[in-house]
Amino acid sequence: MPLQTNDPNRKSWIGYSSDSHFPIQNIPFGVFLTRDNVITIGTRIGDWAIDLGALQEMGYFDGVPLTDDMFMQDTLNDFISDGKKTWRLVRNRIGDIFDSENPLLRDNKEHRNRIIFNMDEVEMQLPVLIGDYTDFYSSKEHATNVGTMFRDPDNALLPNWLHMPVAYHGRSSTIIPSGIPIHRPQGQTITAGSEQPVFGPSKLVDFELEMAFITTDANNMGQPISVDEAEDYIFGMVVFNDWSARDIQKWEYVPLGPFLAKNFASSISPWIVTLDALEPFRTSGPDMEKPVLDYLKSSNDKTYDIHLEVDITPQQGKPTTICKSNFKHLYWNMSQQLAHHTINGCRVNSGDMMGSGTISGPKPDSYGSMLELSWRGERPVQLNDGTERKFINDFDTVTMRGYCKNGPVRIGFGEVSNQLLPVYEPKSKH
Amino acid sequence: MPLQTNDPNRKSWIGYSSDSHFPIQNIPFGVFLTRDNVITIGTRIGDWAIDLGALQEMGYFDGVPLTDDMFMQDTLNDFISDGKKTWRLVRNRIGDIFDSENPLLRDNKEHRNRIIFNMDEVEMQLPVLIGDYTDFYSSKEHATNVGTMFRDPDNALLPNWLHMPVAYHGRSSTIIPSGIPIHRPQGQTITAGSEQPVFGPSKLVDFELEMAFITTDANNMGQPISVDEAEDYIFGMVVFNDWSARDIQKWEYVPLGPFLAKNFASSISPWIVTLDALEPFRTSGPDMEKPVLDYLKSSNDKTYDIHLEVDITPQQGKPTTICKSNFKHLYWNMSQQLAHHTINGCRVNSGDMMGSGTISGPKPDSYGSMLELSWRGERPVQLNDGTERKFINDFDTVTMRGYCKNGPVRIGFGEVSNQLLPVYEPKSKH
Repeated sequence: MPLQTNDPNRKSWIGYSSDSHFPIQNIPFGVFLTRDNVITIGTRIGDWAIDLGALQEMGYFDGVPLTDDMFMQDTLNDFISDGKKTWRLVRNRIGDIFDSENPLLRDNKEHRNRIIFNMDEVEMQLPVLIGDYTDFYSSKEHATNVGTMFRDPDNALLPNWLHMPVAYHGRSSTIIPSGIPIHRPQGQTITAGSEQPVFGPSKLVDFELEMAFITTDANNMGQPISVDEAEDYIFGMVVFNDWSARDIQKWEYVPLGPFLAKNFASSISPWIVTLDALEPFRTSGPDMEKPVLDYLKSSNDKTYDIHLEVDITPQQGKPTTICKSNFKHLYWNMSQQLAHHTINGCRVNSGDMMGSGTISGPKPDSYGSMLELSWRGERPVQLNDGTERKFINDFDTVTMRGYCKNGPVRIGFGEVSNQLLPVYEPKSKH
Repeated sequence: MPLQTNDPNRKSWIGYSSDSHFPIQNIPFGVFLTRDNVITIGTRIGDWAIDLGALQEMGYFDGVPLTDDMFMQDTLNDFISDGKKTWRLVRNRIGDIFDSENPLLRDNKEHRNRIIFNMDEVEMQLPVLIGDYTDFYSSKEHATNVGTMFRDPDNALLPNWLHMPVAYHGRSSTIIPSGIPIHRPQGQTITAGSEQPVFGPSKLVDFELEMAFITTDANNMGQPISVDEAEDYIFGMVVFNDWSARDIQKWEYVPLGPFLAKNFASSISPWIVTLDALEPFRTSGPDMEKPVLDYLKSSNDKTYDIHLEVDITPQQGKPTTICKSNFKHLYWNMSQQLAHHTINGCRVNSGDMMGSGTISGPKPDSYGSMLELSWRGERPVQLNDGTERKFINDFDTVTMRGYCKNGPVRIGFGEVSNQLLPVYEPKSKH
């Protein structure tokens, strides 16, 4: 990869503060609605959204092999299908166009006015049509916490956990971008000791701090992807809130796994940050504690040092940061996850999304869910307005942020932030 | 609904035998590739595929409110989005066009040649882009058999089973139409008593006899669908083989449910039969054995009398019918399934597919999987070539059929038939 695009010394003629998540070294991809009500594919520098459809139309991508309407679409799926070589050519070209030394667009006011929007003027959309969504369960700390609470502290991890990245399928239709409020789900729950379930609003709505990666078309049915080639099929990553209803989950999930406890909503940060942008933050994950089967053997540098934070903001209140974790804590890396997912021949398509599972770290303030932070409600979490939370209240907003930093440049994901509304009431009842 | 379309006395000017699954009273919807390599939406009468795109272009749907290219598409999703009123208008019009008394197309040889293809000339495609696929677990006999084998015969059903239609999310990307061969999956399995899993081809590949229904856009996020309105959102049904690898399943599925044991392949019959065509076969299902919560209360006539059969055909051998079951055995009906799926506000889209779960009946020859038919391999199933099967062998073809019959008219689904090939070998290894 040309180092220039990731060079920490590169500056842009678009200004931004030193703590921006979106310096010229990032160049994420997303989809937004412009002030003219047009949907386009774009990128972001500082607080400015850049219309890649308009850029392409004006010839700024000439020489890059792209179909004519590649960026005038409402999802990134076709672009992602073009593969890693094309992603790099486009990202490098964008870096060049916005380099402080390049006058081409910098000095063309008419073009700038058609291409660049303030972030306040655009509305971020879901960046991909997600065909299939899979959620892993790859944090050893999280699996251990859950096993300790609900099963046996001495055998918290189930027997398969250290042998495979355990996963299950989730629901694509309810994945939404940051900003869209969700409703508290209703459903069946049961009181301990009772045999008769009751119906009503979930009393234990929770978040799960996760990240997710988006794939390209990776394989034909029947054909596995190896650990070594897996990163070639990962377009990029987002921060992901896998909303959960713990009381619904507890009653429904044996034997086939979580269903209604999860599929009422899942939300993602709207900018997909490429693996190329994350390359300077590559780091090592935990060592494997047990030998793994050959198809899961991986070098130990296939993860990234990504700081993660979660805030709760009560209605008309101020945010309290209640969790600080890091993506690098995960026991199983993305390459192992993708190799495991396809070892049976399962097909992976452009736009598929794979969640990490809750990312809990080793310390109590790094746990990635209210279930763990409040330890099943036994240790309520204090907010800075004097109130406390065991789980999420109606009208609370949950905000997750992710960013990398190990020098002058910060590469960030922005945030995924969604408010929890009360149970949906049909209008006729008002 | 105009009775004429379902009138058993109606004849078509297209000839077919009395045991055809596709009389003029059926009028299913599918997608096929014609001899001219064009993909179109179509229907079927007898052994003839009918190009609805060509029919529309020639004006045969004039007066029916449809966009111009409604049937010149490679999936039914947009048509399904148009809703039940439009499905009925189109199905009724098709019945009229092919009625033996209607000379309009019957006597126009040029039009007939452009519209009607022999089934041998076309290649059936997946009829819908399946956004999300959910699999229920709604046969009490199946759940009881599995619980008896693997848990406790005296408490075979888990505590939640009689209170809700238990379900989990499956993988859309590997749903294929009848006719496409699949590869035996590889994966991790473990020997009883061992702590170390091994890697290799699954030794226990199985089928699951299911049916599935296809939905239209049903709701916004947060808004449940009631049992009473659920049928309005069901476009139609297919026969469904939920291929399974029992040894992979056993090791991976606790606590988050089946994953690689299922997502290597699932196959469906290619013609979607509408609920309107099934209306004459509406029947009652089993009584609820325990009171259910209000949102699951249903009149007892929301199921259909659909005969189901499974054949195994060894390579170059003849088929043996090893299972005869019926859709009406299911404890939970489709309306209850859809109401449960959305009670938490989960959004359902056009083209989503929901499987019934294995449809086992009360008698041992009505069990819907090899696991149950051979009772974990203890009672091998005899084939008519003198061989026996505990599970599915390489090169075996599994064929499932479904049809309704309670008078002179048979309404059928055709079949879903797929061969199991050995584990995929990369070409470079040959």
